[in-house]
Amino acid sequence: MNPRILVNSQETEAVSILDRGLLYGDGVFRTLRLRAGEPVWWREHLHKLNQDCIRLDLPVFDPDIWLTDLRRCAGSSREAIVKLIVTRGCGARGYRAERWPEATRIVTVTEAPTSGVPAQDVQVRLCNLRLGHQPALAGIKHLNRLENVLAQSEWHDPAIHEGLLFDQSGHLVSGTKSNVFLVKGGAMATPSLLLCGVAGVTRARLLEISRKSGIPSDEVDDLTLADVLDADEILLCNSLIGLWRVARLEARVWESPVLFPHLLERLHA
Amino acid sequence: MNPRILVNSQETEAVSILDRGLLYGDGVFRTLRLRAGEPVWWREHLHKLNQDCIRLDLPVFDPDIWLTDLRRCAGSSREAIVKLIVTRGCGARGYRAERWPEATRIVTVTEAPTSGVPAQDVQVRLCNLRLGHQPALAGIKHLNRLENVLAQSEWHDPAIHEGLLFDQSGHLVSGTKSNVFLVKGGAMATPSLLLCGVAGVTRARLLEISRKSGIPSDEVDDLTLADVLDADEILLCNSLIGLWRVARLEARVWESPVLFPHLLERLHA
Repeated sequence: MNPRILVNSQETEAVSILDRGLLYGDGVFRTLRLRAGEPVWWREHLHKLNQDCIRLDLPVFDPDIWLTDLRRCAGSSREAIVKLIVTRGCGARGYRAERWPEATRIVTVTEAPTSGVPAQDVQVRLCNLRLGHQPALAGIKHLNRLENVLAQSEWHDPAIHEGLLFDQSGHLVSGTKSNVFLVKGGAMATPSLLLCGVAGVTRARLLEISRKSGIPSDEVDDLTLADVLDADEILLCNSLIGLWRVARLEARVWESPVLFPHLLERLHA
Repeated sequence: MNPRILVNSQETEAVSILDRGLLYGDGVFRTLRLRAGEPVWWREHLHKLNQDCIRLDLPVFDPDIWLTDLRRCAGSSREAIVKLIVTRGCGARGYRAERWPEATRIVTVTEAPTSGVPAQDVQVRLCNLRLGHQPALAGIKHLNRLENVLAQSEWHDPAIHEGLLFDQSGHLVSGTKSNVFLVKGGAMATPSLLLCGVAGVTRARLLEISRKSGIPSDEVDDLTLADVLDADEILLCNSLIGLWRVARLEARVWESPVLFPHLLERLHA
């Protein structure tokens, strides 16, 4: 299914070759769901997009501009995948990031039929690639995603839904396209993402849900493979899949859910 | 000056919003000079481009295709800057890198008047940003260049031509847009770039020149700031600037060239 696209509110399918988004990956993005015609967790996504823009000194656009473009792009769609992109636009040659008057603002909407509800009990693998530490970019959903591309290229078995990523120090970071929570003794832990990884909106919601539910939760910077294998439950999340429970990681199997049913219900409440 | 552009041999100034070069920085590039109507170090650049493509499992194109497009793009230009880009093209949603039948092949040529000969004795600063380690991408001139963008954004003084970059371990890597050599006791050392950085064509040529000239040279993985400050001479290079001698780094001044005149002469021989 081809997406419908608006670039700076104009109907086009193209950006300039000179756009810094292409030349340097100089931009940020968001991926979210349109459900029953409404963008899910819209405020949270815009807030996170703006936060990421501020960190990279990209312009922050009025929420109404985004919503107007989204409505135009979505048309009569009920179930769809929405992508928002901001790049620094076209500039002079060279890496230096000036404050270009014409940043590029992209909205795409791709129909995604409801029949494609993803699996909630998933099989996962360990990725060989180790994420590099870069505190200046950690947490940001920027357009430099070659590490994720390489990590997902490590396997082709469609039965495996996700790969777990560790950093150069051997600490757990995330999945290739998801955030991760470990459940142990009734408490939740998720990597702190201060050195690498993307801090997703669903991850933030789960941390909030845990607080409201009285479930102890923590952001931890030194979770290891041993912690993963020792966990009572492993959960993966992002704005498209919602919440996944890891049923199998390599040879290790988790039979029964622990916090998963409660969190899933609260997430979609 | 607007560049002339060919995308997959077609005259256009645009790529699709869905191009993985934009979405993920999933591609590689080269920047080189057209001098007296001829691409400088053309064979070396194509070789390096192909090497980078192979490392990222991108398609390798016939040299004749590149040269034909370059000639068309260059027209009657004598002095210009040439950029070659290969991206994985448009694919299905998601990070996974399939071998898309339609990679995107871009050639741009921008007139660059000879009067703009860059300074050869330059002033340099130390960048605060530390490059992350990623051996899977080290050496490759890929489109994930946010670290370079951030590093160049650290200063705005036009008197400062370049910034030196160190990695997370405090080891010297490169300039923000150049490779670096330290000269000490008549020998040359350059960072090995096994963990981060881009291994440029000019760097390779300087290593070759040093061998042919009987100058001891080595690729070293643990050069520190102390080594930089203790050097008899610091040289910066890339395919656009050629060779620069660092005359000043923060408060440290280097009055007299050592190997610079010899290497500069040999480089342009």
